[in-house]
Amino acid sequence: MLEALKKEVYEANMLLTEYDLAPFTWGNASGIDRERGLMVIKPSGVPYDELSPEKMVVVDFSGNRVESSLSPSSDTATHLELYRVFPEIGGVVHTHSPHAVAFAQAGRDIPAYGTTHADFAFGDVPCADALSDEEITGEYEKNTGLVIARCFAERELDPAAIPAVLVKSHGPFTWGANAKKAAEHAAVLEIIAGMALETEALGGRTPVGKTLLAKHYLRKHGKNAYYGQR
Amino acid sequence: MLEALKKEVYEANMLLTEYDLAPFTWGNASGIDRERGLMVIKPSGVPYDELSPEKMVVVDFSGNRVESSLSPSSDTATHLELYRVFPEIGGVVHTHSPHAVAFAQAGRDIPAYGTTHADFAFGDVPCADALSDEEITGEYEKNTGLVIARCFAERELDPAAIPAVLVKSHGPFTWGANAKKAAEHAAVLEIIAGMALETEALGGRTPVGKTLLAKHYLRKHGKNAYYGQR
Amino acid sequence: MLEALKKEVYEANMLLTEYDLAPFTWGNASGIDRERGLMVIKPSGVPYDELSPEKMVVVDFSGNRVESSLSPSSDTATHLELYRVFPEIGGVVHTHSPHAVAFAQAGRDIPAYGTTHADFAFGDVPCADALSDEEITGEYEKNTGLVIARCFAERELDPAAIPAVLVKSHGPFTWGANAKKAAEHAAVLEIIAGMALETEALGGRTPVGKTLLAKHYLRKHGKNAYYGQR
Amino acid sequence: MLEALKKEVYEANMLLTEYDLAPFTWGNASGIDRERGLMVIKPSGVPYDELSPEKMVVVDFSGNRVESSLSPSSDTATHLELYRVFPEIGGVVHTHSPHAVAFAQAGRDIPAYGTTHADFAFGDVPCADALSDEEITGEYEKNTGLVIARCFAERELDPAAIPAVLVKSHGPFTWGANAKKAAEHAAVLEIIAGMALETEALGGRTPVGKTLLAKHYLRKHGKNAYYGQR
Repeated sequence: MLEALKKEVYEANMLLTEYDLAPFTWGNASGIDRERGLMVIKPSGVPYDELSPEKMVVVDFSGNRVESSLSPSSDTATHLELYRVFPEIGGVVHTHSPHAVAFAQAGRDIPAYGTTHADFAFGDVPCADALSDEEITGEYEKNTGLVIARCFAERELDPAAIPAVLVKSHGPFTWGANAKKAAEHAAVLEIIAGMALETEALGGRTPVGKTLLAKHYLRKHGKNAYYGQR
Repeated sequence: MLEALKKEVYEANMLLTEYDLAPFTWGNASGIDRERGLMVIKPSGVPYDELSPEKMVVVDFSGNRVESSLSPSSDTATHLELYRVFPEIGGVVHTHSPHAVAFAQAGRDIPAYGTTHADFAFGDVPCADALSDEEITGEYEKNTGLVIARCFAERELDPAAIPAVLVKSHGPFTWGANAKKAAEHAAVLEIIAGMALETEALGGRTPVGKTLLAKHYLRKHGKNAYYGQR
Repeated sequence: MLEALKKEVYEANMLLTEYDLAPFTWGNASGIDRERGLMVIKPSGVPYDELSPEKMVVVDFSGNRVESSLSPSSDTATHLELYRVFPEIGGVVHTHSPHAVAFAQAGRDIPAYGTTHADFAFGDVPCADALSDEEITGEYEKNTGLVIARCFAERELDPAAIPAVLVKSHGPFTWGANAKKAAEHAAVLEIIAGMALETEALGGRTPVGKTLLAKHYLRKHGKNAYYGQR
Repeated sequence: MLEALKKEVYEANMLLTEYDLAPFTWGNASGIDRERGLMVIKPSGVPYDELSPEKMVVVDFSGNRVESSLSPSSDTATHLELYRVFPEIGGVVHTHSPHAVAFAQAGRDIPAYGTTHADFAFGDVPCADALSDEEITGEYEKNTGLVIARCFAERELDPAAIPAVLVKSHGPFTWGANAKKAAEHAAVLEIIAGMALETEALGGRTPVGKTLLAKHYLRKHGKNAYYGQR
């Protein structure tokens, strides 16, 4: 069942450790099959070197295990919520990569300081509010997804153009067309967060200009993109 | 004698170098067999790549060598004191990992700035006082353990919930159910120390809220934990 | 066609990933054959581990593909412009290496703080102005080269003595006698940028003295150099 | 001739790259045979992966090549001067390791902030003055050694207890009983420099107390040392 998706989600999870984004078991990648109404996600707390495609957990859109004897990631409900509110995405990743976590712990957006950022996201990466006490003691993981959705709605952000978010006091979530793309986005996010941190250490606080931001974003994304082989 | 414990303590010591926490010989892990009244610890000053399970040193609770021709770690008396005052722990680790040392040298607790910290410890990681001149010129290593114990007693901290401490002007000690768990805690401590340092570089000074701290700590620890496979 | 140059440009591109300067596909190296009027450059968006000498793209000085079914780097016009204005160089490299990007995003020159810098460049590494909106919406890549040329002309800098530049809000370009030398310069630039950042973190703001700058630069470069085997 | 010393000096040079202290050819290690009046040192500008024991260069105490067709390190005269003024040392190392260079470029001593430093050096690592213009344009490399000697003389420092120095605007030199010990000291210096930098980033400015400094230094060094196997 869902062999291809399981393989892809497995490979996306392995990318997290290959990109050095997820020490121990601190990260998870998922992928979705919207037609069948199923999501595939990393099992909770299993070290990356013990993973295999077969160990990926299949859940339905309510989070119920469909196959697998393993429990799904404890962040399963966050992933499901993101798939629900962002209908065009096919993969979601959560990590505790350090530079991105530092911005989240400082409660700050990652400013778009240059073209490396612009090649990835069409504007600042937002830091969503911390959850209220009620949201934490209630359905915490689901509410984490709702807080992200609220952030994007209130700021009128397009999840296709800004494929990442920070949750305050917590860390980053990224998404993309599929699980591996979401994993790549998690790696890029960490790099631009580190660059932004060093930019500020050098006294830089000036965001990239709007025209340059658009030039670089649209050079790589959208119908007029001309980066790469076409 | 104590073959299984020696093997585990050996593996815990090797984790210190695998996690990149202990350049040269700057770290040591121990494990305890409380029933037999024996502790197994790294030999002093022996490079990690020359270690083997057989070279681990067995000492009694007074620090006397029971087997082995090698001298035990010079920090042996600190380990023994920690086992004495924290009766539930089974392993202790000491390193000079750089971010944790930086907090120790700055004489500062590591603030719980986010969920990565909360997944590990139920509150700030304390920085214990420097030893007095009398404590240094007296039984230095034993007194290091006593200063740690005093810190936990005065602040009414639970060593099961805060599995790490910094000693001012020195560095970190961690503990856990066994030696390998203590080594894992040393690695996690270094990661959260680095994140805290970067959080402050970004202007962050707000600790994680109490509700979120509790949520994440209890999601992973204690009888209602639901992280991982159960 | 141009087998030797293709091999060298391929190897220079591989150096970018070996030196850890170019995650994903974020970097490109080129080399020139001025007699034949041809430039060899990395194909756009192709991962380093899929490169081979045969995949290097040959273009004429107008940027038209001469061979190859692959599209050349999207930065091709910048490379060509640099070869045009700096007639003595034989190789060009562009990366998004993080410390150099941080200086570029802060809009700052990299000050010559010491002999490591002086061994590489005979003065500060300049940060060229950001492009105007017209320059961005026009021939962006070509204009990037022109902005660099303008910076060197206005400041009366010698590209042989300063083999690197930052473009504001963007990142570094380096050059040299050939593609591999340009790649080495990209690596050195990243190292000195990191050292400059840490120098400032320690309160240092004093440039290396002029006499020491000249001593070290001329110890390694020019007709009286005595570093290395001769 | 001097086969054993050449092998040891070769291995010490290889340690510099193994410890990641010397990118490209930016570091050199030497050893001395005081009885024969000969020093063995790295050849100038030769990449580490092309070195072999046979390629090490033998010079007399005036710096004249005795064997070898290769030119010795351009820093040869500095090494010779250090051996002359510090009669008990048997090995010297020079690197451009980044954290140590940052302190040198900031013109600052590395403060003894904790026990990691105290395990290595019995006090701050001094930053010697920059050379005067006359010293630079004269016998630069020899004068670099003299400036180091002057620093130790004026501050009444014992080179056995402080096995390292920074030269302002330049970088670190270390020494020890032999070349490999000097290389180890270069690695330790880099680690404590990085820790000191992070300590200050966290607001720490308090040196380790004198009693703790002495305790840790003398625990590892001198006749009452009890660290390691004896």
